[in-house]
Amino acid sequence: MTAINRRRLLATAATLSLLFAPALPFLRQAQAQTDPLPSWNDGPSKQAITGFVARVTQQGGPDFVPPAERIATFDNDGTLWVDHPIYTQLAFALDRVKALAPLHSEWTSTQPFKAALEGDMKTLAESGEHGMAELVMASHAGMTTAEFEKIVTDWIATARHPRFKRPYTELSYQPMIELLAYLRANGFKTFIVSGGGVEFMRPWTERVYGVPPEQVVGSSIKTKFQMRDGRPELFRLPELNFVDDGPGKPVGINEYIGRRPIAAFGNSDGDLAMLQWTTMSGGARLGVIVHHTDAEREYAYDRDTTFGRLDKALDAAALNKWTVVDMKSDWKRIFAFE
Amino acid sequence: MTAINRRRLLATAATLSLLFAPALPFLRQAQAQTDPLPSWNDGPSKQAITGFVARVTQQGGPDFVPPAERIATFDNDGTLWVDHPIYTQLAFALDRVKALAPLHSEWTSTQPFKAALEGDMKTLAESGEHGMAELVMASHAGMTTAEFEKIVTDWIATARHPRFKRPYTELSYQPMIELLAYLRANGFKTFIVSGGGVEFMRPWTERVYGVPPEQVVGSSIKTKFQMRDGRPELFRLPELNFVDDGPGKPVGINEYIGRRPIAAFGNSDGDLAMLQWTTMSGGARLGVIVHHTDAEREYAYDRDTTFGRLDKALDAAALNKWTVVDMKSDWKRIFAFE
Repeated sequence: MTAINRRRLLATAATLSLLFAPALPFLRQAQAQTDPLPSWNDGPSKQAITGFVARVTQQGGPDFVPPAERIATFDNDGTLWVDHPIYTQLAFALDRVKALAPLHSEWTSTQPFKAALEGDMKTLAESGEHGMAELVMASHAGMTTAEFEKIVTDWIATARHPRFKRPYTELSYQPMIELLAYLRANGFKTFIVSGGGVEFMRPWTERVYGVPPEQVVGSSIKTKFQMRDGRPELFRLPELNFVDDGPGKPVGINEYIGRRPIAAFGNSDGDLAMLQWTTMSGGARLGVIVHHTDAEREYAYDRDTTFGRLDKALDAAALNKWTVVDMKSDWKRIFAFE
Repeated sequence: MTAINRRRLLATAATLSLLFAPALPFLRQAQAQTDPLPSWNDGPSKQAITGFVARVTQQGGPDFVPPAERIATFDNDGTLWVDHPIYTQLAFALDRVKALAPLHSEWTSTQPFKAALEGDMKTLAESGEHGMAELVMASHAGMTTAEFEKIVTDWIATARHPRFKRPYTELSYQPMIELLAYLRANGFKTFIVSGGGVEFMRPWTERVYGVPPEQVVGSSIKTKFQMRDGRPELFRLPELNFVDDGPGKPVGINEYIGRRPIAAFGNSDGDLAMLQWTTMSGGARLGVIVHHTDAEREYAYDRDTTFGRLDKALDAAALNKWTVVDMKSDWKRIFAFE
C-alpha cells in the first residue's frame, strides 16, 4: 500500500467514523442487549441468574413478579468489592487512629490502640469484639454526620489497597457491577445490605455501584440531633445502634426496606440468614454466594479464614440449591482495570 | 322541548359520550397538567409550593436540584390523614386490647388495660408514656411480622372513624395526595417520616399515598430472626427499637434515607426538628405546616391540645418563613368523598 493510498484510507475511515458516530451508542446498546453480563463466562452460574430474571419478568408467566416487588439485596464486603487482607473499613479505622494519635498520647500504651498504631494485627484480633468496638468508636464517633462524610470521602479518594496499590473503589467486582445494572434494567430495585457502617458506604455507593444512599442498609452508631449556633446538626455518638450482620440482616431488611427480597447475594456466613429469609418464602427466588476461589487474580478462602468466613452458608447453598459463583471459572475478569 | 326531542337529544348525548370516551383520559390529563393541585385554592400556600417546585426543577436555574436529591418527607398523622380525636394507631391498639382481653383476665383489674377496655381515656392519658408503651407492647408484639401485617390489613379494612363513619384510609387529605403525586411527577422521591409505627403504616401506604414500604420511616419495636420448623421468620419483641418523633425525625431521616430532604411537611411540634433539619441547610428549601383550622369540615386545634400539638413549630414557622397551610381557606375540599 502506498503512502497516498494509506492516507486516503485513513481519510475514508475518519469520514466513515464520523458518519457512523451517531449510530455507535445504538450499536453498543444492541451488543449489551445480546450479553448484559460480558464479564461472566457462560456456565451454570450465569444461566441460573439470567434464567431467574427471565422467569420473574415474563408477563403472564407462572413466576412473574411485579416490578415493585423485585427487590434484590447485596452484601458488600467480599460480594461487591475486595475484603482481604482486612475489611476496608478496618483499614479506614486504623488510618483514622493514626491520624488522631497526636491528640491521644495515652494510646501509645493502651490497647487496642497501641496494637493499631503498631500494625500488630495479632494483638488487635485478640482484643475481640470489645477492642473492635473501641476502635470504631474512637474513629467513627465524636463529630457531626457532615464532618464524618467528608472524612470518608477524603480517605476513599486517597487510600490504596496494600496488594493492588489502587483505590478501594476500583477493587469492586466488574461482574457484580454488570449484574447490578442488569437487574435494574429488568425493573429490580437494588439494595446493599452490609455489616459495614452505613455512613462509611453511602458517600460512594452511588458512584461505584449505582446504588443511592437511601438503598444502602448497614450497621450504625447512634446520632443525636442538636442546634449549635442556630444551625441544626446530627452528632455521632460513641454508642452502637444496629449491627447489620448475620441474623441482623433479615432484621435490617425488614426494618429499613420493609419488603422481602426475591434475590440475595452474599459471600459468607454473615449472609446466611439473609439468603434463608430471601429464598425460603415460596415463588421463584434466587440465592447467590460468591465463592472466592482465585488466589491468583484475587483471593481464595472459605471455611478456614477469619474475615468473610464461608462455612455454614456453603453447606446451606447445596441444601437450598443456591447458586455458588466460582470466581475463577465463572468470571472472565474480576476488576474493570484488568 | 317535546318528549321526542328530549329522547333524541339523550340518544345523541349517549353517542357523543361513546365517541369521546377514548379521549376522556387525555382530556383529564390535560386538565391535570393545567392544575396539578385542583383541591387547593389559589393563594400564598399553593403559590409557595408550586413556586418552589418550579425553581428547583428549572434546568440551569440558580436553584436547580438534580432529581436524585429531590427528597421530600411527610409526617403522617395530622399531615396526610386525620389524627383526631385520637391517633388511628391508638384506636387500633385499643381494639386489639379488646380482642385479646379474653386471653388476659388480669387486664380487667390492671392499668392501663382496665382503662383501655372501659374506654376511660382520662385514666389512659394519665398512665403516661409508660402506660402507652405497655399498651403498644401488648397489642403490637408477640407475633411474627407476617402475622402482624395481616392483623393491620384486616383492621384497616374494617375499622371506622367515630365521627366520619368511614375507613381511616378514606380520611387521608385529598390536597396532600395531589401534592404527593405532583412532587413525584416533578422528579421528587416522597417519603413518610412519622412518629407512628412503621409496620402499622407499610401495609397500606402504597395504595393510599403511592408511597412504597421502602419509603416509609417510622417508630419501631425490635424483631428477632429465627428458624421455626425449618422456615425463617421475624418475631416481634416487646422492646422499643426507635422513636421517630421530635428530634428523632432528623435522626431517622439520616439513618433510613441517608439524604437530607429539600422539602418537609408536618403539622405539629413533633415535626419541628425535621423542618429545621430540612430547611436550614442552604439552597432552595420548602417547609410546610398543615394548620388545622376547620372545625366544621375536620378539626381546629393548635396550641392547646394534647394530640398533634402545634405550638413551638408555629412560632418557628413565622421565624423561618415556612408555609403555614390554613386548611379552611387553602383547601377546596379536604376528603376525596366530599
